[in-house]
Amino acid sequence: MTRRISELLRHGQPNELVTIKGWVRTKREQKGFSFIEVNDGSSMAGLQVVMNADLPDYESIVKRLSTGASVEVSGVLVSSLGKGQRIEVKANSVIVYGEADPETYPLQKKRHSFEFLREIGHLRSRTNTLGAVFRVRNACSMAIHQFFQEQGFIWVHTPILTASDCEGAGEMFAVTSLDLKKVPLTENQSVDYTQDFFGKPTYLTVSGQLEAEIMATAFSNVYTFGPTFRAENSNTSRHLAEFWMVEPEMAFCDLEGDMDLAEAFLKYIFSYVLEKCPEDMQFFNDRIDNSVLTTAENIIQNEFERVTYTKAVELLLKSDRPFEYPVEWGLDLQSEHERFLAEELFKKPVIVTDYPTQIKAFYMRLNEDEKTVRAMDILAPKIGEIIGGSQREERLDVLERRIQAQGLELKDYWWYLDLRRYGTVPHAGFGLGFERLVQFMTGMGNIRDVIPFPRTPLNVEF
Amino acid sequence: MTRRISELLRHGQPNELVTIKGWVRTKREQKGFSFIEVNDGSSMAGLQVVMNADLPDYESIVKRLSTGASVEVSGVLVSSLGKGQRIEVKANSVIVYGEADPETYPLQKKRHSFEFLREIGHLRSRTNTLGAVFRVRNACSMAIHQFFQEQGFIWVHTPILTASDCEGAGEMFAVTSLDLKKVPLTENQSVDYTQDFFGKPTYLTVSGQLEAEIMATAFSNVYTFGPTFRAENSNTSRHLAEFWMVEPEMAFCDLEGDMDLAEAFLKYIFSYVLEKCPEDMQFFNDRIDNSVLTTAENIIQNEFERVTYTKAVELLLKSDRPFEYPVEWGLDLQSEHERFLAEELFKKPVIVTDYPTQIKAFYMRLNEDEKTVRAMDILAPKIGEIIGGSQREERLDVLERRIQAQGLELKDYWWYLDLRRYGTVPHAGFGLGFERLVQFMTGMGNIRDVIPFPRTPLNVEF
Repeated sequence: MTRRISELLRHGQPNELVTIKGWVRTKREQKGFSFIEVNDGSSMAGLQVVMNADLPDYESIVKRLSTGASVEVSGVLVSSLGKGQRIEVKANSVIVYGEADPETYPLQKKRHSFEFLREIGHLRSRTNTLGAVFRVRNACSMAIHQFFQEQGFIWVHTPILTASDCEGAGEMFAVTSLDLKKVPLTENQSVDYTQDFFGKPTYLTVSGQLEAEIMATAFSNVYTFGPTFRAENSNTSRHLAEFWMVEPEMAFCDLEGDMDLAEAFLKYIFSYVLEKCPEDMQFFNDRIDNSVLTTAENIIQNEFERVTYTKAVELLLKSDRPFEYPVEWGLDLQSEHERFLAEELFKKPVIVTDYPTQIKAFYMRLNEDEKTVRAMDILAPKIGEIIGGSQREERLDVLERRIQAQGLELKDYWWYLDLRRYGTVPHAGFGLGFERLVQFMTGMGNIRDVIPFPRTPLNVEF
Repeated sequence: MTRRISELLRHGQPNELVTIKGWVRTKREQKGFSFIEVNDGSSMAGLQVVMNADLPDYESIVKRLSTGASVEVSGVLVSSLGKGQRIEVKANSVIVYGEADPETYPLQKKRHSFEFLREIGHLRSRTNTLGAVFRVRNACSMAIHQFFQEQGFIWVHTPILTASDCEGAGEMFAVTSLDLKKVPLTENQSVDYTQDFFGKPTYLTVSGQLEAEIMATAFSNVYTFGPTFRAENSNTSRHLAEFWMVEPEMAFCDLEGDMDLAEAFLKYIFSYVLEKCPEDMQFFNDRIDNSVLTTAENIIQNEFERVTYTKAVELLLKSDRPFEYPVEWGLDLQSEHERFLAEELFKKPVIVTDYPTQIKAFYMRLNEDEKTVRAMDILAPKIGEIIGGSQREERLDVLERRIQAQGLELKDYWWYLDLRRYGTVPHAGFGLGFERLVQFMTGMGNIRDVIPFPRTPLNVEF
């Protein structure tokens, strides 16, 4: 039976007969024998294979082996004299499945820029860094599921296709089955959607929150975890047109409960990944960003500070810092303000609550002062805003007033209002951009390098 | 602390002081006391609450309680004299969060048709049947993750937005940021995609397989689990425009390994759900389809039969059955043929392999006879086809030939071909339509009732 290399590196014992399958990372030829390092993607480290010259077909096999070639190796585990490795395989047989011509294979041993690697998105996961990223991404995904499932949350699959363009969370992509070359128009020159697949304008969702609220009024505690979209023409290291979001929603929950859950959630995720992917995380700390581990520890070990927006503004004004953007009650906090609070003032994660009504969404619960809403943002050192959430407005009359105040139509929210009409409950939730979490966790500078196939303006390859 | 009702029903002991929060399912008033059944979505069964007339504000509280109202109940657990329940709560306090006017609340105690419930998709999860469906859907999702993760598979998030329209798996939705009212055209009257977000025609994916193959050549074993799309105008009980798919892909794996994995996978999923959701599964068997449990047992307990397509055609011809559709080597098997094989001939799941080349996709591995490919479909009693998979063509020259034979352009597959050019490996995988699995597992007749917010022609509400 084929053994996984990660498992052999941990538990393999000398004299075991093993078979491994993977891809050659490096080859070194010496007089009378050769070494190859074989990687199967199960761990950053590969397993060293020693081939003696008396191996059948030694010459022709070694000739066919080069970085990227695929092999099956059977042999016996032996203690390794090489540094950095406990065991290696002495090969009894080597089968080469596929060669990788060194003249043309783009992934030679030398370092490549992440920009270049994006152009070969079909091969880049074979590199140390991207391999580590996607193992961490997987562990992080499982941490999310495990955290919520352990507490009885139901994973709900909210729709990607939606007819509501009205939440205002961002620009949306249109989805259509009409022939774009000749879109049918009505008499007054608007699109004749009666001929389209859904009979009305349809978009890619920007958030599953409103549907998650539906499900929370049936199952109490639910979460979404799936792709969301923004048609924003942002070419930055932090924006994707397609990205994954996590959005828990809890019935019978207020902002305090929401904050408690979010704090426990982040601590859990970071602890889980440190435990499951220690080598990969060490690699990021050594090679990508040497604050990765201290940032993780900071999140895990500190009780998060909680301050109101009003208090945060006071503290910023008192700081006498020459901020680039103005600090004034009613204006949104900028990244520089958020980082000052988390990194310099409190030196740990900070939850800012109760933001001004006018800078937050209509569905956030209005405080008695009517000037602020029960919103919360979590700011972390080195990271900035990582989670945004709120208690939702559960009072029918207040919600109707807020919708109308934004110039929106009540009828577009008939079902959302029904949730307040029938058995309404205090409820709350938050949203976390999954790629940003992975980016922060790994220290990767560009968000395009933490998702397998990034979609950004003009980029939809693979 | 609030307790979950599922947990109390299992472990609650008389004399415990408890608080529960949920929605009223039924109310019965008697002289001097009233009963309500409270459900919080954690289980099919609710918890019975007894309110004595000496409860503070008894009269006004009882008046506000009706089906759908949301409540918080604190009290003491007592043994129940009612049939079908071990314990109940004697209320010390009842808080009504939200009423549900019996005059207008659509979910009264009487039975509703599933068609009607789809019109109130924001409320239907509060019913017994839909509640059970989405708990089973959640358990099924977790079974999928757990099965693959235990074996070291990496969950990969393949893209939703894609520029390849060429796999031919089905009609695709177009995605655009162009203004549909005035789509810009080039001089020769084709769409000027240079002005669109991605600079080229972009679609919603019909399958993550090709990208999963990329990831399998880095991590050996991977799986996708996410939404996919079809713009087919099919108004049937088995078609959705948006549905979730599971697609594992294994490097160093042939069709035998693929079948072994698929069989183990199905057995695992069904066992897991039976274990995690026994009450819900019993409910489906009692109320929806009385073959649900025997179908599950059939899958779990039988070794799947494996026959070639050629053999299957022989068996069908020999059967002397008056099938509606012709049976002839080279034609695809129809549902009636598949059900005959699984239900009548073998009376257990059957894997049919090695289909004619011309009825299967270009990427399936060509057999030496050149007439058949290493494809496999799993057919289950009462269910029909539930899984389709194949060993993939890993030989560069053969794959190029197959692509060209289909009239496709090699350059559109440059990266897919590169996987065969550099370290190619035998590999295989399969696809499972997640909603069909849930449909079969629960016996639900219409696929629109196993996804929270179904998208079908002209339906994109909620």
